[in-house]
Amino acid sequence: MDRRSFIKKAGLATVGAGAAALATPAIAQGNITWRMVTTWPKNFPGLGVGAQRLADRITKASGGRLTIQVYSAGELVPALQALDAVIDGSAEMSHGASYYWQNKSAGLSFFTGVPYGMNSRELTAWIRYLGGQEIWDEIYDQFGVIGFLSGDTGTQAGGWFRKDINGLDDLKGLRFRTPGLGGQVWEKLGCSVTNLAAGEIFQALQSGTLDAAEFVGPYNDLALGFYQVCKNYYFPSFVEPGLATELVVDKKKFLDLPEDLQAIIRDCCQAEYDAVAADFAANDPRALQTLVNEHGVQVKYFPDEILEAGAKAAREVLEEFLNSSDPLTKKTAESFVAALKIVRQKTEGTDVPFLQARQKYFNL
Amino acid sequence: MDRRSFIKKAGLATVGAGAAALATPAIAQGNITWRMVTTWPKNFPGLGVGAQRLADRITKASGGRLTIQVYSAGELVPALQALDAVIDGSAEMSHGASYYWQNKSAGLSFFTGVPYGMNSRELTAWIRYLGGQEIWDEIYDQFGVIGFLSGDTGTQAGGWFRKDINGLDDLKGLRFRTPGLGGQVWEKLGCSVTNLAAGEIFQALQSGTLDAAEFVGPYNDLALGFYQVCKNYYFPSFVEPGLATELVVDKKKFLDLPEDLQAIIRDCCQAEYDAVAADFAANDPRALQTLVNEHGVQVKYFPDEILEAGAKAAREVLEEFLNSSDPLTKKTAESFVAALKIVRQKTEGTDVPFLQARQKYFNL
Repeated sequence: MDRRSFIKKAGLATVGAGAAALATPAIAQGNITWRMVTTWPKNFPGLGVGAQRLADRITKASGGRLTIQVYSAGELVPALQALDAVIDGSAEMSHGASYYWQNKSAGLSFFTGVPYGMNSRELTAWIRYLGGQEIWDEIYDQFGVIGFLSGDTGTQAGGWFRKDINGLDDLKGLRFRTPGLGGQVWEKLGCSVTNLAAGEIFQALQSGTLDAAEFVGPYNDLALGFYQVCKNYYFPSFVEPGLATELVVDKKKFLDLPEDLQAIIRDCCQAEYDAVAADFAANDPRALQTLVNEHGVQVKYFPDEILEAGAKAAREVLEEFLNSSDPLTKKTAESFVAALKIVRQKTEGTDVPFLQARQKYFNL
Repeated sequence: MDRRSFIKKAGLATVGAGAAALATPAIAQGNITWRMVTTWPKNFPGLGVGAQRLADRITKASGGRLTIQVYSAGELVPALQALDAVIDGSAEMSHGASYYWQNKSAGLSFFTGVPYGMNSRELTAWIRYLGGQEIWDEIYDQFGVIGFLSGDTGTQAGGWFRKDINGLDDLKGLRFRTPGLGGQVWEKLGCSVTNLAAGEIFQALQSGTLDAAEFVGPYNDLALGFYQVCKNYYFPSFVEPGLATELVVDKKKFLDLPEDLQAIIRDCCQAEYDAVAADFAANDPRALQTLVNEHGVQVKYFPDEILEAGAKAAREVLEEFLNSSDPLTKKTAESFVAALKIVRQKTEGTDVPFLQARQKYFNL
């Protein structure tokens, strides 16, 4: 029986036959299993958990037609080969952070977060309404992939410091674990910056090889036990006002999916963006309470002279992107700055004045 | 041909026939069309647009198996009968704001937003991670429906005032259009509060029947033309730090859906929560620029004595819920307060210090 005659016969036969009984065999036939490699350790709070939950969402919303199998960092490929695994076809999806791939295209940092940049709400406004997604698509097109926001930590903690930080003088030569563009900012402030893997930080703090370390925020940092060595926990991170995660998908395979499955991937990523941010909003403060109340951690704030010098350094880092000889990088930075100029008006002009008033006057 | 022999034949016939050809007739058979009544005028910026986009998302992600037909306020039922339409079965879904139904259960206000309460990020943290959804389910169970967050305006504008507001004295007897719990707060501050429908506000401001009016924020207010009468636009709204929208679904019909369609409704609502908030984050400031640059509107801030007295009044409004004789209302308020005590620690302790530093030091 050729396909056309089958459909014709099926069409006739199904009158009144009911959908459920028919849908099952058809859907079972179409099942696809995709591999999602991630840059996170198994059960990594917030981010790794979010990757698994995203996979489960897609599997469930598609009724199993698109089943996502998650691989933690190292299970299929090492963390920092996740994007390459999608590019070379050994996985269909990767879950990580766009700035891990800044060596492929410098502008990718902006889709994770940059020093003194956007918070989680501002970033989604740029991506979805102010041209961000289109530029991101243009960058990733070069590699045959497409990226979607899939989570955000919100504003992070500034870091763990063995000694008090009272001003810029205290940063001179300070051996500080802090990666990426944030590391560049701290280096400009006088620190001696290193980038150790998460698993090596504790030991380096304990042995005195490090004077300070920055990882994520209370929810993740509690698990790594830094409080056993350092008691000074500084806030806020002005170099990571947000850290967005991404789902990257092989573009051709994505476009070959039926439209409903494409929609499901998009919707589930956007749902997860909210879910991960909500998770951090609920669980960062709970973890901080534990750190303070059970482990004697002291919450401290960076002095103004560091915040000010940090802003100057962040501005210099941003200028390098704005002056990039790579047109796409320059375009990304320009779009980001234009969007930030818009969105910050509401954040700083409406959100913050309310929150300050609440903090000052609304005691519970 | 009976059903069993059809499936058997189809199963034999489809070997090698490919999934797409089969899936189409089976899915077409199972199509359901549901009616979504809304409380918004057609194309109402942010919120009404969000209702339509949510309907389109569900329709698309389900491949048309669950097609949602949207009815603007008044098309099928008047705005404030939307929930009743779901309860009495004349619609399967309603899109609106939970506080419209506070007469059915006072605690429902908390799922939209309350004076000096949560911003959009804090609300989703309470709903998803700190027990909010469970209590909301308990309230709506009484009416045979289930609610999902489906959007948020973010922190709103304080309102349009004909004259300068320099202190509490300027509020005495001020005829102010501001509804709901926010209205109760302003009444405690000395205003004479009225609640006119959106379409009547402009005329009342123009004729002098009103001295002030509060609606949503720049994105919505621009369209209503208040700037033609008032030039003083005060910020922030301490009575609406966020306004969440909801999708309400007939619970029995929801649970009768296949699990994948249930998941699609949930995921699409959560995606929309992010989308609507992003829309306001991007478009409120653009609308405000238009108001200021093209219409001579002046942005002003409430003086501290009003913010402080407003907090005291908001606290009194909250106390009434905490002391409610209705156990579910009391439980809702207690859960909200407990969650706010947690989430505000990050918002006020990490987010705001970063945003203040950015405002002060990071000029673009």
